[in-house]
Amino acid sequence: MPEFDNSPYVVVSSDCHAGLPTEEYRPYIEAKYHPAFDDFLAEQAARVEAATKLGVRNPEFARAWFEEHEEGLRGGWDSAQRDKELDADGVTAEVIFPDADAVESTTAAPFGVGLTFSGGLDQELALVGARAHNRWLAELCSHSPERRRGVALVPITGDVDAAVAEIRRAKESGLGAVMIPAMWEDKAPYHDRRYDPVWAVCEELRMPVATHSGVAPRDEYGDHLGIYVSEVTWWPARPIWFLIWSGVFERFPGLKFGVTEAGCWWAPNLLWFMDRLFLGAHAAAKLTPFEEVKRPPSEYFDRNCFIGASNTKRRELAHRYEIGIDNMLWGNDFPHPEGTWPNTRKWLRTTFHDIPVDETRRMIGLAAAETYGFDVAKLAPVAERVNLRPGDLGQSGGEAAGWAAAREVGRHWLTGHDFPVIGYGATLGGHRTDDVGPEVS
Amino acid sequence: MPEFDNSPYVVVSSDCHAGLPTEEYRPYIEAKYHPAFDDFLAEQAARVEAATKLGVRNPEFARAWFEEHEEGLRGGWDSAQRDKELDADGVTAEVIFPDADAVESTTAAPFGVGLTFSGGLDQELALVGARAHNRWLAELCSHSPERRRGVALVPITGDVDAAVAEIRRAKESGLGAVMIPAMWEDKAPYHDRRYDPVWAVCEELRMPVATHSGVAPRDEYGDHLGIYVSEVTWWPARPIWFLIWSGVFERFPGLKFGVTEAGCWWAPNLLWFMDRLFLGAHAAAKLTPFEEVKRPPSEYFDRNCFIGASNTKRRELAHRYEIGIDNMLWGNDFPHPEGTWPNTRKWLRTTFHDIPVDETRRMIGLAAAETYGFDVAKLAPVAERVNLRPGDLGQSGGEAAGWAAAREVGRHWLTGHDFPVIGYGATLGGHRTDDVGPEVS
Repeated sequence: MPEFDNSPYVVVSSDCHAGLPTEEYRPYIEAKYHPAFDDFLAEQAARVEAATKLGVRNPEFARAWFEEHEEGLRGGWDSAQRDKELDADGVTAEVIFPDADAVESTTAAPFGVGLTFSGGLDQELALVGARAHNRWLAELCSHSPERRRGVALVPITGDVDAAVAEIRRAKESGLGAVMIPAMWEDKAPYHDRRYDPVWAVCEELRMPVATHSGVAPRDEYGDHLGIYVSEVTWWPARPIWFLIWSGVFERFPGLKFGVTEAGCWWAPNLLWFMDRLFLGAHAAAKLTPFEEVKRPPSEYFDRNCFIGASNTKRRELAHRYEIGIDNMLWGNDFPHPEGTWPNTRKWLRTTFHDIPVDETRRMIGLAAAETYGFDVAKLAPVAERVNLRPGDLGQSGGEAAGWAAAREVGRHWLTGHDFPVIGYGATLGGHRTDDVGPEVS
Repeated sequence: MPEFDNSPYVVVSSDCHAGLPTEEYRPYIEAKYHPAFDDFLAEQAARVEAATKLGVRNPEFARAWFEEHEEGLRGGWDSAQRDKELDADGVTAEVIFPDADAVESTTAAPFGVGLTFSGGLDQELALVGARAHNRWLAELCSHSPERRRGVALVPITGDVDAAVAEIRRAKESGLGAVMIPAMWEDKAPYHDRRYDPVWAVCEELRMPVATHSGVAPRDEYGDHLGIYVSEVTWWPARPIWFLIWSGVFERFPGLKFGVTEAGCWWAPNLLWFMDRLFLGAHAAAKLTPFEEVKRPPSEYFDRNCFIGASNTKRRELAHRYEIGIDNMLWGNDFPHPEGTWPNTRKWLRTTFHDIPVDETRRMIGLAAAETYGFDVAKLAPVAERVNLRPGDLGQSGGEAAGWAAAREVGRHWLTGHDFPVIGYGATLGGHRTDDVGPEVS
């Protein structure tokens, strides 16, 4: 076995969540909006009931979850507890989205600006709620600031000048990224030039812009949970092709846009499909050129986009040479039950055991550190303390050989190859996974 | 080289188009709707202008297309010319959707019920237009009936009783399938029980139900063609997960639903994602069971769904063991320029040259023949005359070996394997495609 770099991983979770118990946001809300806030609080029971009816919430599971994790879940808003949980879980740093409690919504950001953030909200109240959360979040991030990157909520579908002002204010307060509504609903789609001032300020301030999954057109789904889950990843990803094809990344080459907790399994097909369209597929022979787009969409994707891929699946990792290793930002989704907390060390071993160490370093940390502007030197002592090493994932430095063919083929439609190639020469020997089951497939 | 079955292929195109020059539909429309029909005809210029503005239509391409193919394009409505074109192109039989002219829309079915068929149309006029097209189409199919399967247009988003009656009438007139609006827009989504009488009659009469790509929420796209093309395949496929998760295929186990000309590259991820959800992913631990769904979604997909995959791409063929060979129905899209006509023989060779013959027989013909109820014995003499054989595709009977690993892995999440496997052991030797270019990738 060759010697290899077994130094600790800098693990950056690109998908964590924090939020106050909702009623505690009151001091962060201007007094004249307190009556509206009372109304919002009063609707909490109805929101939980609706979630239960759709099947997103299961009362028995909820009881067990809170009982088992009572202490850890206080890390949703308590910085000391949060550091303790991250350390134990193997995580060096984190990007913080809203809504700590995804089970009972007891920490929903005011006026619906958390994971239900959408253009369909009352846009005036949305800005009030966003400011309240953003102010509190800046306080949270002032503890252990080197390991936290707070994501400001900004309702850009409303007043654009106010949105730009809030982005500047958020940046000054110490926040480092911007979450926009995943759906514009009846507001202007994101190709609209009205948003150019938003993209401009985010480019100027190096604030990555992100959506997060959660919102979807639930009115169309009845109570069929499967429909919701089947397309809840599509809606927050949708802005990617709106921004690429409308030339936003030509006009704002430094802008970064990402979609969070929506998987990354769809990215290879998306890139293949868009590149082929741009490069002149037979089917496009009757189409006019794409004037606002100067290069293959995958080039914008690599330069301007990223995926907060959360708990990456084996199937997704197998496609990483098409997705782009630096585009896949792992996350533990702390403290949500869909995520890997508090078992991240075990999950990372299960999914990354045969992935080359240098690629693992990018996907579970360094790519996110660059995207979100962490100071890796300052993270080094935290990583030492957290102490998660390649050897802990079962890696030994010889992982690259089995993936050589897949790496060489890469994006086959750009490298002249015939079809995608998956690692290990796609031989069957020894790569059955009877011991892990469908949850990692 | 072993001996192999070099008998002619029965090639069934699951995606062809026919339609009268629009004004010639007048005799098929009840007189009281003639004024409305005059209005529809008057809007034709505006429709072409809108298509040009979006970039779907390119005037120079259009001129060249009509000049070069003047005679063949008459096959859009002339049965003798049509047979001549199919024979020359290598096609034994065909499934016929509306709108022969996808370039200038000169054969648009009345009142928007062609490839712009949607729940957003005036539903009364939609039924009038559908009946007009259906009556004419039955006449077309009365010529060479053994090789034609006409698809009746039925606006099920309007009056359900009227829709059921039209389906029965269409069946009696000789049509063999039903096309429904790809988008319901402001009407009821397809999980709604109001549609049960439609599913029931289609099951009873063995009429497969299909959508066809074309409709999308263009109001959201501005003039950005890339956005339209990037998601125009998603909208017509959307009913698949609405029907599966709402238990339609439990209630109507004999119902067949398919999506046409929307590619099939998305199917592996969809099946993987839905099966994992059903089978109890970690992420679903907080979710209630799916009461209306009794088996993994891929089982319904295999039993009840199909994809009219049109001009299958190499990337799609490489994933056929995940998609399901009998779920991929090839088509030449005659007489649309996105399709392979009049070069289908060459295209089939380019894309299928290394695919096992028995699998090719299913994908380019027999699976469609079963789905759409063709009498294969009656097609045999046509296939003899058309005379397209495995040898003509460059096949020699030894193709299976290189795909053995991929076939064994199949749907890896159900077979206990780790990640997908692509054919040829995914070795690189000899499988570069420098000579074919991106149009087949």
